[in-house]
Amino acid sequence: MLSSYKSQVDLKLESIKKNLPDLPVYDPIKYIIDLGGKRFRSSLLLFIVDMFCQNSAKGIEEAAAIELFHNFTLIHDDIMDQAPLRRGKSSIHEKWDTNTAILSGDLLYALVNKILASSKHQSSEIHYLFQQTSMQVCEGQSLDMAFENQNNVTQDNYVEMIKLKTAVLVACSLKIGAIIGGADQNNAQLLYDFGINLGISFQIHDDILDVYPTEEVFGKQIGGDILEKKKTILFIELLNNISNDQRSEVFQKLGEKKLTDNEKVEYIKLLYDQYNVLLLAKKLKEYYYQKALDNLSNLVVGKEFKNKLMDFSNNLMNRRN
Amino acid sequence: MLSSYKSQVDLKLESIKKNLPDLPVYDPIKYIIDLGGKRFRSSLLLFIVDMFCQNSAKGIEEAAAIELFHNFTLIHDDIMDQAPLRRGKSSIHEKWDTNTAILSGDLLYALVNKILASSKHQSSEIHYLFQQTSMQVCEGQSLDMAFENQNNVTQDNYVEMIKLKTAVLVACSLKIGAIIGGADQNNAQLLYDFGINLGISFQIHDDILDVYPTEEVFGKQIGGDILEKKKTILFIELLNNISNDQRSEVFQKLGEKKLTDNEKVEYIKLLYDQYNVLLLAKKLKEYYYQKALDNLSNLVVGKEFKNKLMDFSNNLMNRRN
Repeated sequence: MLSSYKSQVDLKLESIKKNLPDLPVYDPIKYIIDLGGKRFRSSLLLFIVDMFCQNSAKGIEEAAAIELFHNFTLIHDDIMDQAPLRRGKSSIHEKWDTNTAILSGDLLYALVNKILASSKHQSSEIHYLFQQTSMQVCEGQSLDMAFENQNNVTQDNYVEMIKLKTAVLVACSLKIGAIIGGADQNNAQLLYDFGINLGISFQIHDDILDVYPTEEVFGKQIGGDILEKKKTILFIELLNNISNDQRSEVFQKLGEKKLTDNEKVEYIKLLYDQYNVLLLAKKLKEYYYQKALDNLSNLVVGKEFKNKLMDFSNNLMNRRN
Repeated sequence: MLSSYKSQVDLKLESIKKNLPDLPVYDPIKYIIDLGGKRFRSSLLLFIVDMFCQNSAKGIEEAAAIELFHNFTLIHDDIMDQAPLRRGKSSIHEKWDTNTAILSGDLLYALVNKILASSKHQSSEIHYLFQQTSMQVCEGQSLDMAFENQNNVTQDNYVEMIKLKTAVLVACSLKIGAIIGGADQNNAQLLYDFGINLGISFQIHDDILDVYPTEEVFGKQIGGDILEKKKTILFIELLNNISNDQRSEVFQKLGEKKLTDNEKVEYIKLLYDQYNVLLLAKKLKEYYYQKALDNLSNLVVGKEFKNKLMDFSNNLMNRRN
């Protein structure tokens, strides 16, 4: 339902790309723009602008900035996670090298800021919100990395981490859309809160899909997060529900060279079943999704818009891979 | 002569540091603030504000932002250059690790932007200038890295590289100071140009000092740039003045395991003498320094300020290490 907004974003990104200088350091930026993506943060931003002032084009610079900022974080996160792939293609540090990935990431973030600085909607409120969000995203990534070496991560720790790493950028997109569209403070704040709750719910959904996809995706390893020992909500709930001895066994098995990847995933899935962690994760997802819907219901906008936002949220939470 | 401004900057940075959250990802940022530095970009900014409105405090947020941005580039440059030391202490990727250095660098850049976004002097002109400069600094670093594998770098290429990597940030500091101080466009542009020319001259001086320090610094390797095969103006002039055969010999010698570091430096210095490259470099430095002084002389400000700026430039270009 946001596809017309996505087209606007893609068009804008294409035009930004075409105007980039011819220096080699811009090649990775052009490459990651070409890799595409759902553009859901930026599409949401445009939708919200439209909702309040019936002119989505007003938010196109900020939408592009949000999308490129997200891509900047992907470039640097992929280095830190040593991820060889991004959207099924080589990640930038793989295709070029780490130095190029660091530098073109920095350059992309600078480009984002220049786009914001050039926008006629520049205001201290938007500027501050965006930079506050940037800092929070970095803090979230730092928590995510710290959790890798921590086996006592609580549910609260996890929620705080994904809130910072994922949800604040969704919330920021919505609120910037509201500000540009001319929404009042109450609506803008409700949309921000909606974004936080939807973002948290969305990330939990993502964690679940990694192990329990409802549709198979060609070339995608089921349980990739398990093999990377990522602290997903499922893994955290499992670790918090088993004994110390079992915990040691889990890590020993995951490090076992004689086991295939599929055997490891099956072993963990069995434990997930045994300890009902899928149910726990779904409950948490539902909790935040419900909070998001509550925020929506308090929004003072026309019913058709509310319904559209509801549909969008539903689609997002029912995506199958 | 800028020491009172430096004190203001140090005080401001200390207060920013104290207000940073307690998360571990902020530790490297606190560390690099503590490493200190000449703070000459930010001191210049305050001096210029003072010059135009007799109230340097007006520029303190922007001064801090410029200084912290410079530190952000140092953190990431040190990763790319694999530099083990920064201001005589461990660099951040050495003391922590590469991932922490990438992330805390990103966070520092976000902090810089948040400081700018919080400033009451926020304007699209300052915002745009700053972000344009950030992009140029990244472009400069990319050229510097590309030159490592290029043996046909011209003097023009070199000047363009140091202009982007070093001079634009000096120029940006001066122009932001001018804007905040309320200077007219003509003065603001002259100060920008002065910063470009002074910055280029300063970097050439830096290249020269690496091989020809006028004072010995404890623990600093003379000719460190030579051993890293850095494309300094001296090395570029040498490569452009010798035959292909000699060029091969130079690289062969620099890679020779049997030679000590000092023997390598002495070997190159002999060639520098033979081909008069020090003279060529000094000429280039003088050329840009003279251009900087020309910019100064066109500035429409009181004589005492001009003299102070002249003194400052003189001190900068006569520093001994």
